Amino acid sequence: MNRRVVFFLSDQTGVTAETLGRSLLTQFGGHEFDQVTLPFVETVDKADEAVRRINAVAAETGVRPIIFSTLVRDEIRDRFLGARGLFLDFFETFLIPLERELATKSSHTVGRTHGVKDRAAYTRRIDAMHFSLDADDGLRPGSYEEADVILLGVSRSGKTPTCLYLALTYGVFAANYPLSEDEFETGRLPPVLEPHRRKLFGLTISPERLQQIRKERRPEGRYASAEQVRYELRGAEALFQRYQIPHIDTTEFSIEEIASRILSATGIERRVRA
Amino acid sequence: MNRRVVFFLSDQTGVTAETLGRSLLTQFGGHEFDQVTLPFVETVDKADEAVRRINAVAAETGVRPIIFSTLVRDEIRDRFLGARGLFLDFFETFLIPLERELATKSSHTVGRTHGVKDRAAYTRRIDAMHFSLDADDGLRPGSYEEADVILLGVSRSGKTPTCLYLALTYGVFAANYPLSEDEFETGRLPPVLEPHRRKLFGLTISPERLQQIRKERRPEGRYASAEQVRYELRGAEALFQRYQIPHIDTTEFSIEEIASRILSATGIERRVRA
Repeated sequence: MNRRVVFFLSDQTGVTAETLGRSLLTQFGGHEFDQVTLPFVETVDKADEAVRRINAVAAETGVRPIIFSTLVRDEIRDRFLGARGLFLDFFETFLIPLERELATKSSHTVGRTHGVKDRAAYTRRIDAMHFSLDADDGLRPGSYEEADVILLGVSRSGKTPTCLYLALTYGVFAANYPLSEDEFETGRLPPVLEPHRRKLFGLTISPERLQQIRKERRPEGRYASAEQVRYELRGAEALFQRYQIPHIDTTEFSIEEIASRILSATGIERRVRA
Repeated sequence: MNRRVVFFLSDQTGVTAETLGRSLLTQFGGHEFDQVTLPFVETVDKADEAVRRINAVAAETGVRPIIFSTLVRDEIRDRFLGARGLFLDFFETFLIPLERELATKSSHTVGRTHGVKDRAAYTRRIDAMHFSLDADDGLRPGSYEEADVILLGVSRSGKTPTCLYLALTYGVFAANYPLSEDEFETGRLPPVLEPHRRKLFGLTISPERLQQIRKERRPEGRYASAEQVRYELRGAEALFQRYQIPHIDTTEFSIEEIASRILSATGIERRVRA
């Protein structure tokens, strides 16, 4: 296996550099990458320290590291001219065509992509998070009035993390309702959900995966048994069919993907631009 | 104000294209950007539909849109050769130098940057989230043993969103303890925190901002009064000084920045690569 050290270099949090770099590295399956994030490189001193670190890695490993940079300020970036690494410069590469297109010089200041852009957006995200926490697990059905979406699914199908991710990332008010014996026996939605049929979105998952997840939490008893898991998932899917509730299978998806697919399928607006 | 339509184009969730594009747009302050995300452009048909949409915007507004693309597959990307827009291609631009550096052809397959890379990482993030929920607001101090970090601060200083963000993004086990009258009166940490002094991290916030946040939630009464807010913040800061607890002022920071700065200051490892 080829190993290579990768640096994510930023004058901010490093989140953008990580996002860029990792999405590119997924294209090189046969390699192993040791990843180091160097955030808040805001001063010449910190830049010089980072250069020393990069050069030390180059000397130690005998191959030059790959550097994904979102450094914005020229005087900081210039310090890396002497670094022994492949310097991939996100800002410079794309700012030049953008400047030409917009017929504007860019500000070349630290952009704080992940900063508090406006207080309203911050407040919206926090409010959405508290909404999700308060409306988690079928608590406080009165709040469904305010919800943008209400996720339905059996225990451990991914409802809570998806709700919190939607809240923290997009400011979306997401409630959730855990499907259980009551619904499976009657084959009907509870009356409390009836007025909100259009907000419902279902999560399913494969029985094998659900069993595995439940076993990690509670290895003994009926909760994680193959029979119980199948019974619950059959019941949930029957409800989704009967009421024509849109739904997705979360088995192969990350939290980000589940959230994006829900927004994409429902057309719910992202309330903030994270 | 100059307006321009911006498209984020992806064969996956669009999260990477959005993150990268927005960080570039922050550099052009005098412009207004109408942002449209086109995720899951996985087929030639969907690509052609996207091209029609882009061209319609160009015709309607009289200026060509800006397109940030993380499309990976050539046959999909090729459909955009005829689109009337500035096509900024995150993948092609950096894949070529990376292929040369690594002496490997990239796979050119949809990389699922935000996919379930491995089950262990997914489980870790979910476990961390449940840990944060269970250990929120000083509940279950028994769990401090397992915590990577314990955030301290007054009500509404940003503890809970930061904990959940650390959990969902980095798989970090973050607990929190709300400082209150008991601690302010005695000027001492509660005994339950004593064995975990090295895990403590404080959040402060300006009195004006805290008052504003509290007023939005509970406008009446002592909770959001200038006097109360100042009293609590003075108390919290006195504790941070007395016990030499590292801390940051969250007033001007987003959740992402607070989280990154905590990791950067404490050296806590990111447990998963989100």
